[in-house]
Amino acid sequence: MSGKELEMGEMGEFDFIRSIRDGCIFSRQNTVMGIGDDCAVIGPYGDKVLLITTDLLVEDIHFILESIPPEHLGRKAAAVNLSDIAAMGGAPLHLFLSLAVPSATKVETLHAVCRGIKELCRRYRVNILGGDTSSSKDGLMISIAVLGEAPMKEVLYRTGARPGDLVYVTGKLGDSAAGLLLIRHEASAPDSIASPLVRAHTLPVPHLKAGRLIAGSRLASAMIDLSDGLVSDLGHVCEQDGLGARLTESALPLSGPLREFSVINGLDPYVLALSGGEDYRLLITVPFRNREPFEKIFEGGKPCHVHLIGEIVETGGMRMVLADGTEKEVDLKGFDHFARAEQK
Amino acid sequence: MSGKELEMGEMGEFDFIRSIRDGCIFSRQNTVMGIGDDCAVIGPYGDKVLLITTDLLVEDIHFILESIPPEHLGRKAAAVNLSDIAAMGGAPLHLFLSLAVPSATKVETLHAVCRGIKELCRRYRVNILGGDTSSSKDGLMISIAVLGEAPMKEVLYRTGARPGDLVYVTGKLGDSAAGLLLIRHEASAPDSIASPLVRAHTLPVPHLKAGRLIAGSRLASAMIDLSDGLVSDLGHVCEQDGLGARLTESALPLSGPLREFSVINGLDPYVLALSGGEDYRLLITVPFRNREPFEKIFEGGKPCHVHLIGEIVETGGMRMVLADGTEKEVDLKGFDHFARAEQK
Repeated sequence: MSGKELEMGEMGEFDFIRSIRDGCIFSRQNTVMGIGDDCAVIGPYGDKVLLITTDLLVEDIHFILESIPPEHLGRKAAAVNLSDIAAMGGAPLHLFLSLAVPSATKVETLHAVCRGIKELCRRYRVNILGGDTSSSKDGLMISIAVLGEAPMKEVLYRTGARPGDLVYVTGKLGDSAAGLLLIRHEASAPDSIASPLVRAHTLPVPHLKAGRLIAGSRLASAMIDLSDGLVSDLGHVCEQDGLGARLTESALPLSGPLREFSVINGLDPYVLALSGGEDYRLLITVPFRNREPFEKIFEGGKPCHVHLIGEIVETGGMRMVLADGTEKEVDLKGFDHFARAEQK
Repeated sequence: MSGKELEMGEMGEFDFIRSIRDGCIFSRQNTVMGIGDDCAVIGPYGDKVLLITTDLLVEDIHFILESIPPEHLGRKAAAVNLSDIAAMGGAPLHLFLSLAVPSATKVETLHAVCRGIKELCRRYRVNILGGDTSSSKDGLMISIAVLGEAPMKEVLYRTGARPGDLVYVTGKLGDSAAGLLLIRHEASAPDSIASPLVRAHTLPVPHLKAGRLIAGSRLASAMIDLSDGLVSDLGHVCEQDGLGARLTESALPLSGPLREFSVINGLDPYVLALSGGEDYRLLITVPFRNREPFEKIFEGGKPCHVHLIGEIVETGGMRMVLADGTEKEVDLKGFDHFARAEQK
């Protein structure tokens, strides 16, 4: 602090969380994992642990009410929380919904948000057990907490990757970032291309079945969901042990619509795949010796495809192997979020 | 809805919650109690259940940042959640904190809020295990979820009161409402009187020890915490079975400062005690046959005093026995929130 009257806008979210993390544990009883992973882990209760995650969606920060149908907003708000449960290898059980609502908001809008949440809850058999409702001076705010469970011995954390481990993702990357550019009218594309990209942004699917299968197999060393973007989230996996990663550019899974969108708009699809957020795929590290049985889980593309995109290395930083065999440093700061890249 | 474009401001919180309550349970597994009490109850896990509550505090709705020290705000935000755990007879275990923060907010303000939360957590040995931080366009928003536990057979619900049960509260009533009037400059008093009243509003104490003792004794039939005001909260206790209550005005426990404050400001202290919110005392109903052993728990005023204020009756509505022995209907609508009453 050094006496300076620092404002929150000058401090990043991660720095703020770091600044309040100390002195948060007053009783070790029942506490397996606190702040720092996709979920907190408490228990054990018998041979299981409980997982708890909470996410905040704020109007004009996380969504623009005019550019997302309220039912989709509800589904997305629930989905991003369920994705955190998936990332630990858990099954979701119960959801808690808190809403701060400007008094001029139409009741029907709120009912549509709730229908969207219920729709996703019905699909995954998640109960809505409580919450809170308040008025708000300005802007809708959705705060959701989800409680899930997992067998204690199967929970996967962000930490645990070792040098030599292979890096997998459970689906295509970058579609959501492209969808956001389209929603913001910062890019354009014909409907047949725009529609699946916008859908990837507004209706992300939590990879719960994949997460459970991976955790149950006990073949992986770490898992995280891709919410902040591949480079940032893979960075979390490497962080604790000062590890690095080497990715293969041609192995990054890109969808057909994203490739076409990128050509039309003169954007580098790999930038979107690496730094675009909100893909809500899972990123998994797998010891090399487990490669075959791990890939066998997803044989036939069910419940989804997994893509081998690189490996964990001993020295920090992230490097990319290009199509011509050369390697380059992935400079995080070089990835100006959604900046228009030179066409290749 | 009837096609009308109803706005949230025209619909009360309770009506909105009622309108979304249906179809929230998709799996009975592990679900003891959903929406409708101070906490959701899940489990059992062994012979225990888990309690979960969540509360939202919105700037300029629940608090004015300029009129409460941020450390007190943090303590209060945590305390109101712990009070919900107390109301079920539970012990709090873990807290989750989500903040939506305007970027111009001073980091030190947020740190002070967090210090206040940690202070209360330290006192009750509650871990802070996670949360979320986001920016907000306008206004600070604090969303807290608390997880607690209780022996399954001891949990107390809002429902369960029977006609003839005695009604107790675990402390004086109305101080918080008077404190709010002082904070809003809608009333005044010398410091010696104002200070404890403002403190009752800004630093409520969750009655966790009392809640645990009452639940452990298994002598009570129902329990709720006083957050919305005695008449409203006692109404929740009576609601489900169409019961009523008869209160004795002279038995309503009023503090010395509240009595003096009321004389100075020409207010009826009983109006504040009956309709003022945020006392965070516990209201308990006790079968008549358990009266003696129940009162014995609190002998010597530890951990607090309990006050017998009336009884549950078969017919709906709330009646008040006045000092002269006559009875009058307590007309909820007659209690205009914080309206200036005629001096007696």
